[in-house]
Amino acid sequence: MQQTVGILGGGQLGRMLAHPAALMGIPLLILDKGTATPAKQVSLAPSPHQAHPDGAFTSPEHIRQLARDCDVLTVEIEHVDAAVLEQVEREGLCTVQPAPGTIKLIQDKYLQKRHLEQHGIAVAPFDAVPEGATVDDWKALEARFGLPLMVKSRTMAYDGKGNSPLKSLSEEDIKHTMGTLASGGKKLYVEGWAPFVKEVAVMVVRNVKGDVKSYDAVETIHKDSILRVCFAPLRVQGKGMLDVNRRAKELAERAVATLQGAGIFGVEMFLMEDGSLMINEIAPRPHNSGHHTIEACETSQFENHLRAILSLPLGSTALRVPSTAMLNLIGTSDSMQPITQAVQVAYETAGASVHLYGKTECRKGRKMGHITVTGDSDAQIRSRIRPILQAMQDLDEDWLAPVAPAQPERSHSHPQPLVGIIMGSDSDLPTMLPAARILDAFEIPYELTIISAHRTPARMVEYAHAAQSRGLRCIIAGAGGAAHLPGMVASETTLPVIGVPVKASVLDGVDSLYSIVQMPRGIPVATVGIANSTNAGLLAVRIIGAASPATAEALAKYAADLESEVLAKVDKLDEMGWEEYATKVLKK
Amino acid sequence: MQQTVGILGGGQLGRMLAHPAALMGIPLLILDKGTATPAKQVSLAPSPHQAHPDGAFTSPEHIRQLARDCDVLTVEIEHVDAAVLEQVEREGLCTVQPAPGTIKLIQDKYLQKRHLEQHGIAVAPFDAVPEGATVDDWKALEARFGLPLMVKSRTMAYDGKGNSPLKSLSEEDIKHTMGTLASGGKKLYVEGWAPFVKEVAVMVVRNVKGDVKSYDAVETIHKDSILRVCFAPLRVQGKGMLDVNRRAKELAERAVATLQGAGIFGVEMFLMEDGSLMINEIAPRPHNSGHHTIEACETSQFENHLRAILSLPLGSTALRVPSTAMLNLIGTSDSMQPITQAVQVAYETAGASVHLYGKTECRKGRKMGHITVTGDSDAQIRSRIRPILQAMQDLDEDWLAPVAPAQPERSHSHPQPLVGIIMGSDSDLPTMLPAARILDAFEIPYELTIISAHRTPARMVEYAHAAQSRGLRCIIAGAGGAAHLPGMVASETTLPVIGVPVKASVLDGVDSLYSIVQMPRGIPVATVGIANSTNAGLLAVRIIGAASPATAEALAKYAADLESEVLAKVDKLDEMGWEEYATKVLKK
Repeated sequence: MQQTVGILGGGQLGRMLAHPAALMGIPLLILDKGTATPAKQVSLAPSPHQAHPDGAFTSPEHIRQLARDCDVLTVEIEHVDAAVLEQVEREGLCTVQPAPGTIKLIQDKYLQKRHLEQHGIAVAPFDAVPEGATVDDWKALEARFGLPLMVKSRTMAYDGKGNSPLKSLSEEDIKHTMGTLASGGKKLYVEGWAPFVKEVAVMVVRNVKGDVKSYDAVETIHKDSILRVCFAPLRVQGKGMLDVNRRAKELAERAVATLQGAGIFGVEMFLMEDGSLMINEIAPRPHNSGHHTIEACETSQFENHLRAILSLPLGSTALRVPSTAMLNLIGTSDSMQPITQAVQVAYETAGASVHLYGKTECRKGRKMGHITVTGDSDAQIRSRIRPILQAMQDLDEDWLAPVAPAQPERSHSHPQPLVGIIMGSDSDLPTMLPAARILDAFEIPYELTIISAHRTPARMVEYAHAAQSRGLRCIIAGAGGAAHLPGMVASETTLPVIGVPVKASVLDGVDSLYSIVQMPRGIPVATVGIANSTNAGLLAVRIIGAASPATAEALAKYAADLESEVLAKVDKLDEMGWEEYATKVLKK
Repeated sequence: MQQTVGILGGGQLGRMLAHPAALMGIPLLILDKGTATPAKQVSLAPSPHQAHPDGAFTSPEHIRQLARDCDVLTVEIEHVDAAVLEQVEREGLCTVQPAPGTIKLIQDKYLQKRHLEQHGIAVAPFDAVPEGATVDDWKALEARFGLPLMVKSRTMAYDGKGNSPLKSLSEEDIKHTMGTLASGGKKLYVEGWAPFVKEVAVMVVRNVKGDVKSYDAVETIHKDSILRVCFAPLRVQGKGMLDVNRRAKELAERAVATLQGAGIFGVEMFLMEDGSLMINEIAPRPHNSGHHTIEACETSQFENHLRAILSLPLGSTALRVPSTAMLNLIGTSDSMQPITQAVQVAYETAGASVHLYGKTECRKGRKMGHITVTGDSDAQIRSRIRPILQAMQDLDEDWLAPVAPAQPERSHSHPQPLVGIIMGSDSDLPTMLPAARILDAFEIPYELTIISAHRTPARMVEYAHAAQSRGLRCIIAGAGGAAHLPGMVASETTLPVIGVPVKASVLDGVDSLYSIVQMPRGIPVATVGIANSTNAGLLAVRIIGAASPATAEALAKYAADLESEVLAKVDKLDEMGWEEYATKVLKK
């Protein structure tokens, strides 16, 4: 017999939990005010005799009744009455997941951070604001964190609410900040400014036994403190950035391991310039930075939450697509019009899945839905989301350019390349240009640069190390003479490396060919003919086409064109006769 | 303002329509008996004042009321009262999609087939049984179609129901068949036996303007006339099989173009030994052979049906994963136990998504749910579905072996290879074996065989042509001397081809190297060192790893192991001293 799950909150997260619940045959009871909340719209109550409870998810009375009616109680929001949850569990009315103690801890962001810090988990700098803080107290905080001081409510702060930067320690400014944040006796804390290069999030699922599984890290991009766009896989570049995904997953898993109870957790963190990671905060529930998992992963965060709290096997967290982005549909005013427009563009966009939340009223800052886009490559994803983001109207080109850039100018590197063309010297450029032109013709995004094995060895190693995590699928390397570049790059990456022997001034390029092709066992270089970078370009296209039907089709067309070209010459030869052909056609 | 869609039928297809309807904010009214049918469980009626209608979807009275309450009426089942639909549309109560005339035509399988035949569409052989057929009429049919005659009801025949093979023309057998099928004056027709090699299906979506888009063809595998398993992409092999996917899509699109109205259509066909295709039948609605599109395609068949009937842009039909399978969960008796068992195994299986339909009672032959499995390769899909199919208990190894084979013995070709290792002569085998051992080590499925460019040219061309559509991602070809095999294979495929120069008795393999690497512009061969098939194997793994994170990880481990191996030698050299090392270690 399936256990009944009770959910506190019937908003969009409850709605997205309801779908896998239906697929798995899990009866749900959803506590929220109203009979047609986003979650209740898509989940009939388990029996005709038992409607979804209609009441506030904070109401102790309703929570107690729900606890009696279900086997496992869970939450779609952490701003619930944790004390009541502790009580119903103590009384044996039902199981609560995640543990009420965890929810309570997380509700207070200061306690949450202190808990993590005490467990040796890197967190962004923070401290409490003493109750009834004096100017001296504020000065002490200023001395440690500088100005402006980011002052936050310890509880009920989310999506930019409950925050206020303190610009000076003037009486007026302090009074203003206290007035904004500390009303009703709310406790405050201060966060230091973390000069991050990216914001990163990892979803972690943990079962009752404490086993954890994490999803790949995503890059989260906020605007006005609200998540707008989320990319997976995470792409990083630069020194110290090796293995960020693995380290982010480890950090998130270690953090969740310090908490109690089962379920999915969203772990938000900062990636610093030196490649280190610090946790910003944790949500004890499905999280906006995991919405892409519905389409893009083998098991969604919502399904894994249900699996975790019901002690079913945890599902695979692997991505099932090469690249994905999630775009939030945030109200810009009371009008749904910008959202409707973005949705219309999404309908025209391949790979875009629209998720409206069934909310009847739009408001500024309200999450009305999201759009997930999946695709073959980062470049495809960025070009797919650009018109959708443009339709949202509140994003100007300055904001858009780094997130979803316009096509780069011809003859300049693409910001999300699939192929890297590198050469030992600018003198190799004429030999390597045909490879670039082939990639242009097939519309494969690539970058082109100079890397010398002997003159810039550190640059070469860094380039090769980062290549795969930057999203490259293949490297074309040209070199002449000693021609070490292709082989040395192949030693520092697991990507396929295509070597182009460049003809030096002596030996006709045979020296380069031997140097490139005769690699030791263990490190292959895919070698093409001397100076034949056209074939290097085509080989790169074939490598991408092996996993991309659209590219394979384009290759078939290219082969057919090659054939027609030769057949046209056959006709011309017949028509002109070979003597005239040799004179007129070949001499030109 | 969103138009309200009325659906006749509230079973699993309605349920799967309800999900995208909710995501797109489309209000639904579902007509079926009961208040908690599979579809109604996941779709709250659009307003508190208007419940989903509770009545038979065949009831003219209910259909008329629903037509008044909605803007567009559609069906999840074709066994509806088409005359009433024609009437409500004529009276202007609402639009009906697909056109009632199409539903009516399709309901009568004989008329459906005649219609297609009259439009020049290839259909499996068939003819009507005259009403009150005499023995002479039967003899005439026997003369054309042979025995046993497959006799079917023209209407209401599905999932093996309404069929009866007539084994002889004895009075008794004819009486039995007529008694089984023609009760209540049902009209009959006869189908000729089509000796197909595979059953194939294509989903086609058509909008109000008549634009069509088709999904990639799938292979459907039936048991006792009920669909059990469905694979995409379709894999074929042998002469005449080139381009089957493209031809199946074209045939399906042409067939749907002859029908009226908008929506999704399931087109089932037979693939014959010579590669030709014949349509078996068409369903004017979402179809079981398109269920994989929920997880595996950029837009699901259900969403595209709604888009089509509401004149929204048709969504991309592209696969978003390399390989997928759909398994039906069919009741074997009144007990849910075998299905529950299969679902348990699915929960343990990466890439498996469970879809239960919320039906309370299980019955033999009833569709209780399905499981979609996605994965990186056909081989992975087959190994993922095998334990799930085994858990269903009604499938013996004879049935399972071709559908989801056990791992092949070591040193034998995998039935779903990603890499093909080919060589010109058996004498090349010792040189090529290390490539095979590398693929073994990385658990990459491969096949190994002999193909000579000069002695088996036709076999070479056929192999190269079929390689991509068989699911190969890369070919490793070894050859010595003139060494034409890699280049000639590369000319006949768009896959990356890796060439291994085999050392012949003279010239040390330099002849083979030049012959393989110095390809003309346009046709690349990825050449490795002379006799270095280890590197060919590793290059194949790198090519697959470029699009597969798990494989890339295994490569990183391989590189780390290579490094440790050398570092161990460093230590040993220090320990022993080089004189002793040279004697004891190298001489061994």
